[in-house]
Amino acid sequence: MKAAEIAILIGGIVDGDPNKVVHKPAKIEEGAPGTISFLANEKYEAYVYSCQSSVILVSKDFVPKEPVAATLIRVENVYASLTVLLEKFDEMMDDSAEDDEEELISPFAFIHPDAEIGTNVRIDAFAYIGKGVKIADDVLIQAHAFIGNDVSIGNESIIHCSAKILHGTIIGNRCTVHPGAVIGSDGFGFAPQEDGSFKKIPQLGIVELCDGVDVGANTVIDRATMGKTLIEKGVKLDNLIQIAHNVTIGKNTVIAAQAGIAGSTKIGQNCMIGGQVGIVGHIAIANGTKIQAQSGVNKAVKEENTALFGSPALLYNDFLRSNAVFKQLPELLKRVEKLEKDKL
Amino acid sequence: MKAAEIAILIGGIVDGDPNKVVHKPAKIEEGAPGTISFLANEKYEAYVYSCQSSVILVSKDFVPKEPVAATLIRVENVYASLTVLLEKFDEMMDDSAEDDEEELISPFAFIHPDAEIGTNVRIDAFAYIGKGVKIADDVLIQAHAFIGNDVSIGNESIIHCSAKILHGTIIGNRCTVHPGAVIGSDGFGFAPQEDGSFKKIPQLGIVELCDGVDVGANTVIDRATMGKTLIEKGVKLDNLIQIAHNVTIGKNTVIAAQAGIAGSTKIGQNCMIGGQVGIVGHIAIANGTKIQAQSGVNKAVKEENTALFGSPALLYNDFLRSNAVFKQLPELLKRVEKLEKDKL
Amino acid sequence: MKAAEIAILIGGIVDGDPNKVVHKPAKIEEGAPGTISFLANEKYEAYVYSCQSSVILVSKDFVPKEPVAATLIRVENVYASLTVLLEKFDEMMDDSAEDDEEELISPFAFIHPDAEIGTNVRIDAFAYIGKGVKIADDVLIQAHAFIGNDVSIGNESIIHCSAKILHGTIIGNRCTVHPGAVIGSDGFGFAPQEDGSFKKIPQLGIVELCDGVDVGANTVIDRATMGKTLIEKGVKLDNLIQIAHNVTIGKNTVIAAQAGIAGSTKIGQNCMIGGQVGIVGHIAIANGTKIQAQSGVNKAVKEENTALFGSPALLYNDFLRSNAVFKQLPELLKRVEKLEKDKL
Repeated sequence: MKAAEIAILIGGIVDGDPNKVVHKPAKIEEGAPGTISFLANEKYEAYVYSCQSSVILVSKDFVPKEPVAATLIRVENVYASLTVLLEKFDEMMDDSAEDDEEELISPFAFIHPDAEIGTNVRIDAFAYIGKGVKIADDVLIQAHAFIGNDVSIGNESIIHCSAKILHGTIIGNRCTVHPGAVIGSDGFGFAPQEDGSFKKIPQLGIVELCDGVDVGANTVIDRATMGKTLIEKGVKLDNLIQIAHNVTIGKNTVIAAQAGIAGSTKIGQNCMIGGQVGIVGHIAIANGTKIQAQSGVNKAVKEENTALFGSPALLYNDFLRSNAVFKQLPELLKRVEKLEKDKL
Repeated sequence: MKAAEIAILIGGIVDGDPNKVVHKPAKIEEGAPGTISFLANEKYEAYVYSCQSSVILVSKDFVPKEPVAATLIRVENVYASLTVLLEKFDEMMDDSAEDDEEELISPFAFIHPDAEIGTNVRIDAFAYIGKGVKIADDVLIQAHAFIGNDVSIGNESIIHCSAKILHGTIIGNRCTVHPGAVIGSDGFGFAPQEDGSFKKIPQLGIVELCDGVDVGANTVIDRATMGKTLIEKGVKLDNLIQIAHNVTIGKNTVIAAQAGIAGSTKIGQNCMIGGQVGIVGHIAIANGTKIQAQSGVNKAVKEENTALFGSPALLYNDFLRSNAVFKQLPELLKRVEKLEKDKL
Repeated sequence: MKAAEIAILIGGIVDGDPNKVVHKPAKIEEGAPGTISFLANEKYEAYVYSCQSSVILVSKDFVPKEPVAATLIRVENVYASLTVLLEKFDEMMDDSAEDDEEELISPFAFIHPDAEIGTNVRIDAFAYIGKGVKIADDVLIQAHAFIGNDVSIGNESIIHCSAKILHGTIIGNRCTVHPGAVIGSDGFGFAPQEDGSFKKIPQLGIVELCDGVDVGANTVIDRATMGKTLIEKGVKLDNLIQIAHNVTIGKNTVIAAQAGIAGSTKIGQNCMIGGQVGIVGHIAIANGTKIQAQSGVNKAVKEENTALFGSPALLYNDFLRSNAVFKQLPELLKRVEKLEKDKL
């Protein structure tokens, strides 16, 4: 793509040679001829003057302090323009991606004769599609994916390689399930017996992912004991997360890698939950809650937009204050000892 | 099923119309016509009067404070009766579950000619059964499961989709390995070399799961360097757990999701280990130990039935007491400052 | 193997009957006739006098305090000799391992006609090899492995069952990817929108594993947004680890299970990172840093060979000192109360 074409695509203004050609994006620290870089954070400004990128996206107000070899494209919002541009590159790369086979349904896939498959659905080798499955239109099912009996999958969803969607799961439109994720495994429910052993409680519910949900690689979402484990519209889950049975996660909540939510807890909308956070079962977390990485939440959060930190979690600022004193504890102990000694 | 039939099944007494028909269970908050709900926790009593369920399981001593539309079935122990009932529903749902194909062994499975397969064994498409494998009777091997060379699997065990059972693993009777679990991966053993690099130490041992063990989705159990990693009878492991090489886990111990046990540690019987707990290597944990979620245990636990909390873990009550003061640390610091000032 | 043959193999001196025959290694606590054990840690010395092993490896300086039934083999360095010996046993066991099939390329694998496959490459049933893939010599691709388009894999690398290597990934020589690992999943990058929802930022970069990298079972390494996520030579990653987009991990660094590294962080060389550690994004960690298990690192580490502990992490010794006072906090509070009372 030429600089001039990119400017049209993202509504920017060319400042320099409009004929410079780029074929892939690069971070500004790693810019090479033929790449397009971007300056969104002024910390990186020095690279504008030294980098080899052919084109650099900058804010419309950017005033260079030194000569710039690259062609600049000036835009209103660098991040927004970058996202549009990356999507364009993504499309162009499709030629070399997984979905370039001519036939849409691999002869090496297993598809139960009862399954209903929409139009423009691609199913790769060794995918398994069970009985009673309903797949809508424009869906991609990659190699080794497992779609259990009676699963339904909405339009434009992508089930990556070796993702496992177990029986009865409902997946909405434009969902993405990344490689190795498990959706609909049995909840961890056991009734203690008199001899100290445990008897499994059947897990008869399902999992439902509403529209626009992303589930990260090797993340696990357990089915409900009864009813459903519910992941609402637009929720984004990172990798290696544990979502236990009967959990609800509210609209547009984002959860980072390796967090775990115990059974029957209800997470509100627009929450941001950090990596490796743990949340106990049977509590409710209000909308807009922000939880710092590695925190452990062991009681309900009633007020919206609360920020938490620590294990067990405190209010974010309370934790910071207590933690500041924690660092000085050896000195504090000495001060108390001195007071005691001086008193004698 | 009619209310009268259910009452016979679970040994309960019908209080209301015995001809009400139900076709699935529901939580009492979500009860709808045609469902059966249960009241086990009096916190939920209000729902008895408003819910739409056709039938509700209650304790034999339950005295309604308002009129109830549903038929009640009164039982000795609501949870125990519920478990029996859920198992019955589970059986009835089998018709629509994964195992409804007519032929037991899929023609799309790979089965080494040397493998010995018992009677009534079901093997689904794309399952891989290696050389020297011995599978007993009434076993289910789901699609994409990997059974390595010389693995043996006992009666009535279930290996879910894409579970990976590596060479030499021994699996007892009535075990369940959930989707994506890995059993028998190499232990993390490397010998440091003089140039700063690491040389792999071959891992020649195995993993043994005794009877009645459950292994959660995407959980990993490493093989021993020598000898075996041993998961004793009735152990229940949740999802995304790490069990390192040469670990032993005692009978009927239960471990919640995302916990990790480092190499050569021996966990006693009847322990309860919370989610995201970490336990260092080469220690022993006494029978009946209870470890709170997110705790980090870095030394042996010698006394049985000890409760632990914190990272590094303390005795449960000691941690609570210290943590209560942690919350007041900024105030404590001020009090010390005041004492110092007053002294001057 | 006879004791005499083993002594030649590892350069040791036989002390006892050189004709004793052993067929497998065993831990000294579990030694049985026909096994070879080793004494590397003097804590275990008592077992030398009681164990049933036919042969025991000991240090050249070992002086028995009681009569020993086993044949001893005396060596310079017990661990180094043991590693050599285990490798020998490992080779001998190959006959019964996964790679004993006669044909190297399973007829049940899917291999795109464009893929380039080197010599002595073994590809097992249900493996998937995409378009444009380049596999060098002496590579093993196990059953259910997924090799996406345009992946390249160097000599003598092993891709275990159901490992998922996504498009464009570069894998060096002598790498091992354990079962269920995911390499090249999309980074967790979303642009917040005005309505509170999130829009996916395309992830166009790749992952590169340099020579001699090990990736543990069910570990996930995300592809870069642009450029690459880089795992340098000799890095060893345990199971269930999360490596986010654009991370770099320096040469010979070792990371234990369930640790997580957030986006764009650069870990130095020769670091040792404990289990369940979390490291925030966009920071640099100096060479030789040691991080205790469960620690949370939230700022850059500038000095080499720093040791850290705690969440949030402090210098190792500072954490130990503060934590020692944490345990006494209830008593410290009482002492302050007493001082206040005495003052009145």
